[in-house]
Amino acid sequence: MSAASVAGVPGTSRLSINQGTIKHASLAEALRATTDAGVPAIGLWREPVQEVGLDVAASMVADSGLRVSTHCRSGFFTMPEGPARRAAIDDNRRAIEEAATLAAAGADGSVAVLVLVAGALPDGSRDLIGARARVRDAIGELAPYAADAGVQLAIEPLHPMYASDRCVVSTLGQALDIAADFEPSVVGVTVDTFHIWWDPDVLPQIARAGREGRIATYQVCDWKTPLPADVLLSRHYPGDGVIDFASLTSAVEDTGYDRDVEVEIFNADIWSRPAATIARETAASFGSAVAPHLRAP
Amino acid sequence: MSAASVAGVPGTSRLSINQGTIKHASLAEALRATTDAGVPAIGLWREPVQEVGLDVAASMVADSGLRVSTHCRSGFFTMPEGPARRAAIDDNRRAIEEAATLAAAGADGSVAVLVLVAGALPDGSRDLIGARARVRDAIGELAPYAADAGVQLAIEPLHPMYASDRCVVSTLGQALDIAADFEPSVVGVTVDTFHIWWDPDVLPQIARAGREGRIATYQVCDWKTPLPADVLLSRHYPGDGVIDFASLTSAVEDTGYDRDVEVEIFNADIWSRPAATIARETAASFGSAVAPHLRAP
Repeated sequence: MSAASVAGVPGTSRLSINQGTIKHASLAEALRATTDAGVPAIGLWREPVQEVGLDVAASMVADSGLRVSTHCRSGFFTMPEGPARRAAIDDNRRAIEEAATLAAAGADGSVAVLVLVAGALPDGSRDLIGARARVRDAIGELAPYAADAGVQLAIEPLHPMYASDRCVVSTLGQALDIAADFEPSVVGVTVDTFHIWWDPDVLPQIARAGREGRIATYQVCDWKTPLPADVLLSRHYPGDGVIDFASLTSAVEDTGYDRDVEVEIFNADIWSRPAATIARETAASFGSAVAPHLRAP
Repeated sequence: MSAASVAGVPGTSRLSINQGTIKHASLAEALRATTDAGVPAIGLWREPVQEVGLDVAASMVADSGLRVSTHCRSGFFTMPEGPARRAAIDDNRRAIEEAATLAAAGADGSVAVLVLVAGALPDGSRDLIGARARVRDAIGELAPYAADAGVQLAIEPLHPMYASDRCVVSTLGQALDIAADFEPSVVGVTVDTFHIWWDPDVLPQIARAGREGRIATYQVCDWKTPLPADVLLSRHYPGDGVIDFASLTSAVEDTGYDRDVEVEIFNADIWSRPAATIARETAASFGSAVAPHLRAP
């Protein structure tokens, strides 16, 4: 990997800014803010990529010289069989192609990782177990496409407060149980501190994820209360909340994880700032709260 | 147990209204609303009991003819050793005495159960593991008092969205792991649908709780999104949300649980209604969403 790092901020040679952190920026603006801040990698989002079209996006990524650490995000396949489910599967196949194309355009060290958010309980349903079974089925259907494209699907457990309306996969252990039916190079997991920090079983499950070769991406942001009115936007810069980045980051590093580490934040206050400011603040918070717990580069 | 049930609402012979559901009522008003609705049991709260004093409260409970299903709530002992921790332990000892006195005053079938909410991460701390260890220590300190008083402590896992600012015990499995060091008659768990419905491991853990003799109380209310601005107030009548009361209630009943089932709701809209209305609505929702899954009385 590149030894590039943010000027004056040690330990950022493995920092990736997830594009969700600078949500209001176009792809061009996001790439520029990331490179201008000296950050060596970016996690991309589908919507801004699709705004310019995949081929143009790939050229822009190649020109940026940045590594690509993830493509975010697809999934949302909890519905029963029918046209909506077919459309979701088709859309996931497109996302797999996007992830492959963008990673190929990225600098050395880029990885083709597609983050998967399972989706909600279908409207009017109380069948959480059924919804979870359909997640497994959808991944089974997508795995051959991902394998052909050289893309690793990264099942992301989301915090249990999103279990009904966003993601029925709620713990790292559950994500690993689903992934267990597939090759690790094809189906891995997303380890995101915000979603799993509370889990009494988090450290053993991180170790398990490493042992099973499943950590596709490590994402960091912080948890702080009170939660805002829209609980989707309750993510904070590392160090601004209560998450113990020392123990979680060390656990991830101890597995031998050596990919980039993404800072992914959804926060209306942060989003309202200029992209360059966000990139600098991200690097600074990462440098102080997370980087000290990475292995020496 | 009494065969009393709400007129016109079958299956309410094991219904208990938790006083938190009619929060703005005094103890006298809560007892009256409960008996007037024909509901046979009540879960009490410390503050309205302390308003009238324990002896007067016990007389009022005896006069009501209601069963007492829990005393809510104590705990909040995550802080390190020092005066604040000593005060918390002392307060928990008082709560144990209250639970014993009130249960003795209740009708036949009353149980002396004290619900314990562990408490928050101490201000400025990120040491979740340490806070959890101090919960175990506090229960170890309180267990002899509870045993002497004939009170069963009921560790309540709270939803992980409260892990930082209210309760560091987040899953039923974790609560059972803590309880495992103690006699089941002294330390049990609270099974509350709102807090655990999302857990991929919930059904096996309910079975385990039953096998280990730990289910001190079964509490029901529903989960619905979007969450309100104050996420503490996001509890709904059974049937108004997405929780599958069939599978959870059957799992609890299959363990042989035969105590009352509490409806505990914190919801500003519901609280704003007259106590009698809340009691009737509670009975109706319980009758339709929960009672069909109880064993025949």
